Amino acid sequence: MSWPQLEGPLPSGLLPDEGSPEWMNKGDNAWELTAAALVAIQSVPGLVILYGSMVKKKWAVNSSFMALYAFAVVLICWVLWAHEMSFGERMCPILGKPNFALGQKYLLERAKNWYIPTATYVFYQFAFAAITVILLGGSVLGRMNFYAWMSFVPLWLTFSYTIGAFNIWGSGLLQNRIIDFSGGYVIHLSSGVAGFTAAYWVGPRLSHDRQHFPPNNIIHMLGGAGFLWVGWTGFNGGSPFAANEITSLAILNTHICTATSLFVWLSMDMLVYKKSSAIGAVQGMITGLVCITPAAGLSLVYLFAQLYILLLFLIQTFGFSS
Amino acid sequence: MSWPQLEGPLPSGLLPDEGSPEWMNKGDNAWELTAAALVAIQSVPGLVILYGSMVKKKWAVNSSFMALYAFAVVLICWVLWAHEMSFGERMCPILGKPNFALGQKYLLERAKNWYIPTATYVFYQFAFAAITVILLGGSVLGRMNFYAWMSFVPLWLTFSYTIGAFNIWGSGLLQNRIIDFSGGYVIHLSSGVAGFTAAYWVGPRLSHDRQHFPPNNIIHMLGGAGFLWVGWTGFNGGSPFAANEITSLAILNTHICTATSLFVWLSMDMLVYKKSSAIGAVQGMITGLVCITPAAGLSLVYLFAQLYILLLFLIQTFGFSS
Amino acid sequence: MSWPQLEGPLPSGLLPDEGSPEWMNKGDNAWELTAAALVAIQSVPGLVILYGSMVKKKWAVNSSFMALYAFAVVLICWVLWAHEMSFGERMCPILGKPNFALGQKYLLERAKNWYIPTATYVFYQFAFAAITVILLGGSVLGRMNFYAWMSFVPLWLTFSYTIGAFNIWGSGLLQNRIIDFSGGYVIHLSSGVAGFTAAYWVGPRLSHDRQHFPPNNIIHMLGGAGFLWVGWTGFNGGSPFAANEITSLAILNTHICTATSLFVWLSMDMLVYKKSSAIGAVQGMITGLVCITPAAGLSLVYLFAQLYILLLFLIQTFGFSS
Repeated sequence: MSWPQLEGPLPSGLLPDEGSPEWMNKGDNAWELTAAALVAIQSVPGLVILYGSMVKKKWAVNSSFMALYAFAVVLICWVLWAHEMSFGERMCPILGKPNFALGQKYLLERAKNWYIPTATYVFYQFAFAAITVILLGGSVLGRMNFYAWMSFVPLWLTFSYTIGAFNIWGSGLLQNRIIDFSGGYVIHLSSGVAGFTAAYWVGPRLSHDRQHFPPNNIIHMLGGAGFLWVGWTGFNGGSPFAANEITSLAILNTHICTATSLFVWLSMDMLVYKKSSAIGAVQGMITGLVCITPAAGLSLVYLFAQLYILLLFLIQTFGFSS
Repeated sequence: MSWPQLEGPLPSGLLPDEGSPEWMNKGDNAWELTAAALVAIQSVPGLVILYGSMVKKKWAVNSSFMALYAFAVVLICWVLWAHEMSFGERMCPILGKPNFALGQKYLLERAKNWYIPTATYVFYQFAFAAITVILLGGSVLGRMNFYAWMSFVPLWLTFSYTIGAFNIWGSGLLQNRIIDFSGGYVIHLSSGVAGFTAAYWVGPRLSHDRQHFPPNNIIHMLGGAGFLWVGWTGFNGGSPFAANEITSLAILNTHICTATSLFVWLSMDMLVYKKSSAIGAVQGMITGLVCITPAAGLSLVYLFAQLYILLLFLIQTFGFSS
Repeated sequence: MSWPQLEGPLPSGLLPDEGSPEWMNKGDNAWELTAAALVAIQSVPGLVILYGSMVKKKWAVNSSFMALYAFAVVLICWVLWAHEMSFGERMCPILGKPNFALGQKYLLERAKNWYIPTATYVFYQFAFAAITVILLGGSVLGRMNFYAWMSFVPLWLTFSYTIGAFNIWGSGLLQNRIIDFSGGYVIHLSSGVAGFTAAYWVGPRLSHDRQHFPPNNIIHMLGGAGFLWVGWTGFNGGSPFAANEITSLAILNTHICTATSLFVWLSMDMLVYKKSSAIGAVQGMITGLVCITPAAGLSLVYLFAQLYILLLFLIQTFGFSS
């Protein structure tokens, strides 16, 4: 590679130093930390507010608290064993070896072949794992006891999430065989299927709750949905682990797909039911976000998106909405 | 230019690669994507929450939904024709030529003479266009039917916003003749005038609604206002399209002007009406944000700000508040 | 230091230019501005929403407004005299010399030996000062008149905050004698002690208010707490004034400590009171955030944290919660 610039010594602001090894790119690190914060904002306060306002009033505090609790406990498990089970060494072809992700030496090492330290990578991957569990929780709001949820979170994280992540993104069996840009399988398919399964086993809500299930506060449901949408800038934008061209493209693709999906759902509501619905628009928005995720940074993005739509649509409709 | 540093080869973290051409600066790209996300947060969830809480309860859902809808539809129009009408080739001296802003090749090109790809630029400019329309919408809350709003958004974007943007920021007639740092004309003057006009044509609210117009939730009005204020860090901070010194200065200027304006308005309330008012403070805050915008990154910033104050103040008072 | 890379001229995206001197690192500047915005979000809208929802309904607007007011007034004082009293020249061994932090030349200079301009530094330090005063205000919600608060804010900032900051972080007496990574003394100890003192002098709330003090909206209390948590990514992440390895480590440490503290508090609630409590979880969360702050980027982080726990715990429990 060659580039036709002025010769000259390195500007002092670009020199490596004690905190910035020569493999580091501070622009990448700045972006990745920002992206992780945006994903964290999707969960806390985003889903805390969304869950607290989309359910009946009697479940509101419980639903919010489920999201906050999961965010905390996933992080504890994440650094104690789950990060390494997902992204560490192979224990057997489909399982990673549990280990700490806490040592200073380990955390300051370069993360794979990116230009960021491992600490940033662990934090970003935690934010992914946390939102997956919390999205799954959306299927059992008003159905699952808080104490049951307290055990469910670490168990599901350990025995389900880490397996998906290890096999698709880590050193597992399907490595390089499935392209999953930002978590179509690892996050949405897995939380959708688990949510559906959990909802099936937990059983339906009481009959009178099913017939009348108004959100207790539509304004904050829309506000919480807003965090979800805008936070997705970090969700899909963080997956290249860099602030490069793919990042910019993935972000733009994400928002275009989401806007289109919202608009299509709204139009369908108006055609079929003869009226617009804010709740329908939010459904459309979430469908769009989920559909674009596995393919947001790829060239064949629209083809991919279409293949996913049928599958994810079904799962989500049953998993999230019912 | 010369700089007295150590000679040496380029650190590996700074080498161009497939996703990062030699004209790219990842620090700039990281910042610009963050700035765009902050502007998006101002609209969704910021104005979604602000509008849903500042109106009477009966209009709350409708007002929130107007903001969410506009955010989605502006993006669809933006990439299909409006971005190119604003920043693309000249069709005639005052109009840009409509075209897609969707092709991969186009989106990966360098954005003008900045160090970021066009995809980032398109996303940031979309966030500007969206908030302009949503701010305009603030003038017709509780007056305009949602179905009328559905058509109004793409029409106003196409036939008004793109013209202002093309002539002042694009290749139009006033290019290099007006300095508008971050949208004093293109955004605030245009949404203020349009809001005033729209409010005039739509007509006043019903008499009993005008006499008694309490916000349905002052706490969330203050919260929504908070998003608007802090999000402005990205609004004015994104305009240099870089994370350079002008960016830092523009951000500091923005917040100083806003804080001062809030304080002055509060003091006036206490002098004239003998009591402090949270709603008055929010008015002062918004006035400050709007006034500094066209000049935030310029040296003569205070002079400029003062010239705008009279004009914008009047427009805003009638456009937003009445 | 040597690094074994390809020789070659500097890529054009990395060349210094008019807005980016050779000492500048745009990745650092991008991150620091983002971090400052995250800290600002903790106050406005974070604490605006938290305070407005954690108190009785009759105090809600007043409490929110106290936070918004303080944010504005601290900035005005900050650039007029308080920044220089904290980080400027020595007037006497324990006091800095009041001066403007407004001149263009001054603001465009390099900030100490970091790779960012002074304007960024002033903005970030303002966000710290503002949240300190607002946290302090948490102790007097429902006890202090708004007009008293209006004078209290500039007075406390000037005569207390600047002294702590000058002596520990600036050129004062304790410079290099105390390690305070991100404000354990300067922010939390000082706001805790001041809050305790202020609460003592203002006196207890009325008897019937003390016996029954329900938050007026638990969902938004949890939402507001969420902003506080995630915003701490910028709070502790901004203290290295760079996007380097220490930054990544400090952020990860911060969130691990907070999650653990939340979980421990929740477990204690369940052991002692036989029930989980969302309010208890938020207490645990805040304790965790505060405890890790002075040591988040240090190696002996857990040792430090433990030493602080007893002290801060007591202060916080009395200062914030009672």
